Amino acid sequence: MTLSEYLACQQRIVDEALDRWVPSVSTPPEVIHKAMRYSLFAGGKRIRPILCMEAAHAVSDLTEGIESVACTLEMIHTYSLIHDDLPALDNDDLRRGRPTCHKVFGDAMAILAGDALLTLAFQVLAQIPGDAARKMRLIEELSTASGTVGGMIGGQVNDLEGENKFPTAALLESIHRAKTGALLRASVRMGVIYAGGEDEQLRALSNYGEHIGLAFQIVDDVLDVEMSSGALGKTAGKDAKQHKITFPAVYGLERSRQMAEQERLGAHKALAAFDERAERLRQLADLVVHRQA
Amino acid sequence: MTLSEYLACQQRIVDEALDRWVPSVSTPPEVIHKAMRYSLFAGGKRIRPILCMEAAHAVSDLTEGIESVACTLEMIHTYSLIHDDLPALDNDDLRRGRPTCHKVFGDAMAILAGDALLTLAFQVLAQIPGDAARKMRLIEELSTASGTVGGMIGGQVNDLEGENKFPTAALLESIHRAKTGALLRASVRMGVIYAGGEDEQLRALSNYGEHIGLAFQIVDDVLDVEMSSGALGKTAGKDAKQHKITFPAVYGLERSRQMAEQERLGAHKALAAFDERAERLRQLADLVVHRQA
Repeated sequence: MTLSEYLACQQRIVDEALDRWVPSVSTPPEVIHKAMRYSLFAGGKRIRPILCMEAAHAVSDLTEGIESVACTLEMIHTYSLIHDDLPALDNDDLRRGRPTCHKVFGDAMAILAGDALLTLAFQVLAQIPGDAARKMRLIEELSTASGTVGGMIGGQVNDLEGENKFPTAALLESIHRAKTGALLRASVRMGVIYAGGEDEQLRALSNYGEHIGLAFQIVDDVLDVEMSSGALGKTAGKDAKQHKITFPAVYGLERSRQMAEQERLGAHKALAAFDERAERLRQLADLVVHRQA
Repeated sequence: MTLSEYLACQQRIVDEALDRWVPSVSTPPEVIHKAMRYSLFAGGKRIRPILCMEAAHAVSDLTEGIESVACTLEMIHTYSLIHDDLPALDNDDLRRGRPTCHKVFGDAMAILAGDALLTLAFQVLAQIPGDAARKMRLIEELSTASGTVGGMIGGQVNDLEGENKFPTAALLESIHRAKTGALLRASVRMGVIYAGGEDEQLRALSNYGEHIGLAFQIVDDVLDVEMSSGALGKTAGKDAKQHKITFPAVYGLERSRQMAEQERLGAHKALAAFDERAERLRQLADLVVHRQA
C-alpha cells in the first residue's frame, strides 16, 4: 500500500469512529450536532488520530478499539480550532477551505460546539470498553495535554500574550511546545498506553512525539509565509499581520527549514529501537516536514 | 450548628479544595489562572458541591476526598457561567455582584478560561486517588450531564433557540431539565457513586436531584422577575427582555411559586427512606425554594 493509500484508509477509520461517537444531525438539539459535525468533517488530515493508532501498532498487535481513543484527539483539536477562529481570538473566516464554524452557525453556537466537542472527548474515553485504570491514564494524558500548565490552552494564552512582544527563541519554543506540541505528544503516548506498551517504549515514542510536534509547528509557520490562502485552505500570511511570534520571524525562513529537518531526523532517531512496525511513523515524520499544506 | 453556619463551613471546604486543584495565580501563564480564579472565587453559593458532599454523607461514612469530586461540579458550573455571559451569548456585564470575566479579562481570555475549567474538571477526576472503575463512572456522569444530549450544553442550545419561540410547557421543561437540572442531578449522583451507595439509594437520590433541579430553575425565573439587580447580584429582568421561555412566562408568578413548592415536597418525599443522615439534604431543598437570591 502506498503512503497516500494508507493515509486515506486510516482517515476513513477515524471518520467512521467519529461518526459513531458524535450524535447524528437528527439528534436534538439538531443544530449543535450539525455545527460539531460541520467542523469535524471538514477534511482534516487526522494527523493526531493516525499518530495515535500507529504508535499503538508499533508496540502491540492488541489494538482493537484504538480508533475510539484516536478520535478523541481529533475532537480536542477541532474544538480548539473552532474557538481559535472566533472573532474574539484569531478572527478567521476560512478553515480547511471552507467558512469557519462561527461564520456558518454564529458565534454563540460555535462557542457551544467547541465546548461540546471538548466534553464529548472525555465522555468517549469514559465509555469505551477496557481496563478502567488504563482509561484513567488516557484521560489524565488528554486533559493535561489540553490544559493550562504546559498544555494546549497554556500555549494559546502565551500565543495571545506574545503578540507584539519581542520574538525571542525561548518564548517561541515555550509557546509551541505547549500549543501544538503537547497534543501531538499526547497522541503518540495515548496510543502506547492503550496498547499496553512498556515504559521504555513510552519514553522513546514520547520523544518521537516531541520532535514531530516541533517539526509540525515550524513547518506550519513556514507555510504561512510561503503559501497562498487557496493552497493552504486557511488565511495565509496572518502570522505576520497579527505580529505572532513565529519560527521564520525569529530564525528566518532558511534556518527554520533546517530546523524542521533536524526535528525530522530527531524523530527518526527516537525510533531507532523499533523495527519495521514503526515504518509508518517514520514516513509520517517525513510527511509532516515535507508537506505542502 | 445552624444551617447558615453549616453552609459557611461547607463552602470553606469547597473553596479549599478548589484552591488546591486550580493552579495558583503565580503559575504561568498567570493571566489564565487569574481569570479562572476570578470567576471561581466570586462568592458562589457552592450549591452543587454541597449537594454532592451531602448525598455522599447520606449513604456512607466513607467519604474522604469527596470535596475534590465536589469541586469539579463547581468548575463545570463556573465555566458555563463564563461562556454564558459572553457578548455572543447572554451578553451580561454583572455576575454575583461583580463585573463578568470577559469584562475584566477580555473575551478571548474568558473563552479560554471557560475551556480551561472544563478541561480541569476531568483532569481532577482522573487524578484523585481511589478505585479507577468508580472514578470512570464519575467521569461518565459529569460528561453526560454537561453534554449535548439531555445535558447542560443541550439545554443552553434549546434556550438560545427558544428565544422568541412560543413558550409552551413542554419546551420549557425540556430546556430546564437539561440546562440546570442535569448538573444538579449529577451533583447528587456523583456523591452517591463516590461513597459507594446502593442502586436503590442512587435511584432515590437521583429523584431528589431532579426535584431540586426543577425547583431551582423555577425559583431562578421567579426571582428574575421579582428582584432588583442589586439584590440578585446579576442583571435582573433579563429573561423578559430577551424573550426567554420562563416559568412565570408560561404559568404566571403565582402558579410558578406553587410549582416550586410542589418540587420541594417531591424532594422531601424522595428522601423518605433516609433517616437523619439526610437532614441537611431536606434543609437544602427548603433553602433552594425559599432563597431570596
